Amino acid sequence: MDISFLLIVEIIGTLAFAISGIRLAAVKKFDWFGAYIVGLVTAIGGGTIRDLFLSTTPFWMLNYWYLVVTAVALVLVIMFKRYLVRLDHTVFIFDTIGLALFVVIGMQKSLDFGFPIWVAIIMGTITGAFGGVLRDILINEEPLIFRKEVYATACLAGGISYWLIHKLGGSVVLQQVSCAAIIIIVRILSVIYNWSLPVLGNDNKDNSK
Amino acid sequence: MDISFLLIVEIIGTLAFAISGIRLAAVKKFDWFGAYIVGLVTAIGGGTIRDLFLSTTPFWMLNYWYLVVTAVALVLVIMFKRYLVRLDHTVFIFDTIGLALFVVIGMQKSLDFGFPIWVAIIMGTITGAFGGVLRDILINEEPLIFRKEVYATACLAGGISYWLIHKLGGSVVLQQVSCAAIIIIVRILSVIYNWSLPVLGNDNKDNSK
Amino acid sequence: MDISFLLIVEIIGTLAFAISGIRLAAVKKFDWFGAYIVGLVTAIGGGTIRDLFLSTTPFWMLNYWYLVVTAVALVLVIMFKRYLVRLDHTVFIFDTIGLALFVVIGMQKSLDFGFPIWVAIIMGTITGAFGGVLRDILINEEPLIFRKEVYATACLAGGISYWLIHKLGGSVVLQQVSCAAIIIIVRILSVIYNWSLPVLGNDNKDNSK
Repeated sequence: MDISFLLIVEIIGTLAFAISGIRLAAVKKFDWFGAYIVGLVTAIGGGTIRDLFLSTTPFWMLNYWYLVVTAVALVLVIMFKRYLVRLDHTVFIFDTIGLALFVVIGMQKSLDFGFPIWVAIIMGTITGAFGGVLRDILINEEPLIFRKEVYATACLAGGISYWLIHKLGGSVVLQQVSCAAIIIIVRILSVIYNWSLPVLGNDNKDNSK
Repeated sequence: MDISFLLIVEIIGTLAFAISGIRLAAVKKFDWFGAYIVGLVTAIGGGTIRDLFLSTTPFWMLNYWYLVVTAVALVLVIMFKRYLVRLDHTVFIFDTIGLALFVVIGMQKSLDFGFPIWVAIIMGTITGAFGGVLRDILINEEPLIFRKEVYATACLAGGISYWLIHKLGGSVVLQQVSCAAIIIIVRILSVIYNWSLPVLGNDNKDNSK
Repeated sequence: MDISFLLIVEIIGTLAFAISGIRLAAVKKFDWFGAYIVGLVTAIGGGTIRDLFLSTTPFWMLNYWYLVVTAVALVLVIMFKRYLVRLDHTVFIFDTIGLALFVVIGMQKSLDFGFPIWVAIIMGTITGAFGGVLRDILINEEPLIFRKEVYATACLAGGISYWLIHKLGGSVVLQQVSCAAIIIIVRILSVIYNWSLPVLGNDNKDNSK
C-alpha cells in the first residue's frame, strides 16, 4: 500500500473515532475541553494501551497530527452538530474503515516488535476497540462493546484472516488487505443483519451484586 | 517450592479470578466476548499494572496460557452456571489461594527487579487486588475492595510478614510460605468473623458532591 | 528555585491533593483502605500516567515520601473532618499551589527526557489534572474536570505561558514561575468569577445514548 494513501485513511479513521467520542460527550453535556479529551481518548486510547504494552513511547507523542485532527473533529461537531445526525451512515463507514486500518497498524507494529502472531491479533484488537472502552469508562457508561454489535469480534476475525493468509503463504500486503476487508465486511454485515453474540445472562434472574 | 506445583496453583488462581469476573459480567448481561474480557482483566489486570510499573512486558504477552485458562473459565461458567452458585465456597477457596500466590509472585518479581521491600509489598498487593479494581471499573461499579472484606489488607499483612521473616533471617521459601499463609488465614478469618475496616463516613451526613 | 522550597511546596501539594481525594471517598462511605487508595491515586495518579508515557519508573516507586504524606492526609481527615469543611478555602489554596507545581514538574521532566514543548504541555496538564480523573473513575463518577471549573484549561494556559516566555528568551526559572503564576491566577479568577467553558450540549435535547 502507498504510504500517503495509508496516512489519508489513518487521518480519516482518527477523525471518525474522535467524532464518535465527541458526540457521546455532547450527549453528556461535557464542556469543550471535556469533549476534546473524550474524542482524543477514543481516537488514540487503543493505540496508547498497545504502545504501553509494547514498552514503547505512545505514537501520538511523536507526531502532533492526532491532536490537530481531534481539534478539527471538535470544530466540525460544534459547527455541524445538527447535520451530523443525518450523516450517521457516512460516519459509520469512516469509523469502520478507521477500525480496519487501526487493527492492521496495531498488528504490524506488534510483529515489527518481534511478538508472535497471537499477541499481534490481541494488540490489533486493542488498537481498534479499546479506545472506545476508555471512552465509555471516562463518560461513566458500561463499555458498549461488551453488549452491542460484533465490534471486537470483527477485529479478531480480521486478525485471524491475517494469520491464515500468512500460513497459506500470502504476501504481507495480501495479509493486511484481507484483514481489513474481513473487518469491514463483518462489521457491515453485523449491522445489516443485526448480528450479536450470545448474552451470558443468569437464567434464574439473579440480579444481586 | 516446586515449579510444577507453583504452576498448578497459578493456573487454579487464574481460573478462580477469571470465573469471579465472568460471573459478575453475567449478572450485567454482557455478551460472551464482554464476559471473556472482564474475566481476563480480573485474572491478569493486577499483574499487568505491576509489569507496566516495573517497565517490563506484561507477563501474559509471553505465554498464552492465561488466555486459554480464561477461555476455559468462560466455558465452565456457560456450562455450569446453575451449579456454580452452590460451589461458592469452592470458588472462594481457589480465589483465596490464587490471591496469596499472586501476591507472592508480584513481590518476588519486584525484588528480582531490584526494588526495595516496600515497593515489593505494594506491587504484591497490586498484583493480587487490582485485577478486581479494573474489573469493577469495566462493569461500571464502585470497586468492591474499597468497601467490603479485608481483601487488600490481607495482601498487605502477607507482605509485611514476608518482610519480618526476612528481617528475622528466614529463608526466601519461608518468607513466601508465611506471606501466603497469612493472606489465606486473614482472608478466611475476615469472612468467618465478618471483619471490616472502619468506614470513613461523614458524621454530619454531608452527602453533597 | 531553591530545592528545599520546591520540596516543601510539593509535599503541601501532595497533601492537598490527597485530602481532596480522601474527602470524596468519605462522602462515598469507603473504608480507610479505600479512602487511602483514592487519596493516593488523586495525589500521584497524574504523575504516574506521565511516567508511563515517558517510559520511566513511576516517581513514587523511588521515594516513599508520597505514601507517607498520603497517610498523614488520611489521619488528618479522620481526626479533623468536622473542621475541614471550614478550611475549604485553605485546602483550595494548597490544592491550587500544588496544581501549579505539579504542572511545572511534569513539563520540566518531559523536556529533560528530550520531548518537544507541545508534549511537555500535555504531560504537565496530565500531571496536574489526571490524578483527579483517575479519582473520579475509581469512585465511579463522571470526571469533574469535564464539566466544572477551568481546571485543565488553567494548566494549558500555564503551559503555553511557559512556551511563550521561552520564545521571548526568558530564563528557565522565569518560564517556571510564570507558568505557575498563570495557573494560580487563572484558577482563582475562574472560581471568583465562575468562569466556565461552553458546554457542548445537543440543541435538540437528544438524550438518547
